[in-house]
Amino acid sequence: MKFCSQCASPVELLIPEGDNRPRFVCSGCGTIHYSNPNIVTGCIAERDDRILLCRRAIEPRRGLWTLPAGFLENHETVEEGAMRETLEEARARVDDLQLYALFSIPHISQVYMMFRARLLNDDFGPGSESLEVGLFGERDIPWREIAFPVIHETLEHYFEQRRHGRFTLVSGTIHKGGRAS
Amino acid sequence: MKFCSQCASPVELLIPEGDNRPRFVCSGCGTIHYSNPNIVTGCIAERDDRILLCRRAIEPRRGLWTLPAGFLENHETVEEGAMRETLEEARARVDDLQLYALFSIPHISQVYMMFRARLLNDDFGPGSESLEVGLFGERDIPWREIAFPVIHETLEHYFEQRRHGRFTLVSGTIHKGGRAS
Repeated sequence: MKFCSQCASPVELLIPEGDNRPRFVCSGCGTIHYSNPNIVTGCIAERDDRILLCRRAIEPRRGLWTLPAGFLENHETVEEGAMRETLEEARARVDDLQLYALFSIPHISQVYMMFRARLLNDDFGPGSESLEVGLFGERDIPWREIAFPVIHETLEHYFEQRRHGRFTLVSGTIHKGGRAS
Repeated sequence: MKFCSQCASPVELLIPEGDNRPRFVCSGCGTIHYSNPNIVTGCIAERDDRILLCRRAIEPRRGLWTLPAGFLENHETVEEGAMRETLEEARARVDDLQLYALFSIPHISQVYMMFRARLLNDDFGPGSESLEVGLFGERDIPWREIAFPVIHETLEHYFEQRRHGRFTLVSGTIHKGGRAS
């Protein structure tokens, strides 16, 4: 950030009075410009013992597989965002959403919220951001071609819990380089 | 938003190619400026059958009671943010955080994530944003002086589940006017 989005004056990085961390503050009108983490929300869309994966048509990680997910938009609930992304990326409708995984990725200031959900329609398929969409059982998952560490981690927990027949909320942190804790 | 934070040219509200909703786009350098919901994270800090509440020293809702909570900052995990806010507002240290409540407030583009946590220290007290901090049992909660509908809703579920001796994740939506669903 270089200029104030309200008055176009240059901004300075300084700690405002009563605050304890640097913010971009306008040298003209004094507006404080905050920057905060974004939420990525999406679904594990379930059909019997299989789940829906999408092969990415866009960068980053074009050609690799992921769960349908994307940035939560203003004026959406997290469930609405997860359903919208699933519809946009996989043309799949879902219901009965339950929060399954909560992962913070602090080095890129993102928080992932992934919901288990019931897949409703059979005519799913690639949206504009996907090359291919398919239903995968545990043995068919392309484990070495998963786009993001947070998705790999989510899927590992998911299938392990599935083998034990009981799902509980998974939460954790994804560190730079992909290590989870 | 009126001006580009990168080059100070005026921005226009339009739907970028490949997108499906209006964004502020710079008329000079073409930068697309996204705006997304913020996360508010905090704690239900437990000590035996009581929890910690703070009386707000700042607007909005100065003088009313709330759980310690605030905006997640960049490069924090949601648990770190909840612990930091609990320390800042109530000078209370906590551990053993477990996600308890997830509420979307779409009309103000906020997502609340409240964690149950164990209160560790006895020398808690008001931070700079609180007038007063105290431990409250269910019968002492100032129900008519709770600052925000999302906190009222969280506390209602919490004490009801507590009576039944079992906690499960609570999630929902807070609508304009305070109604929950």
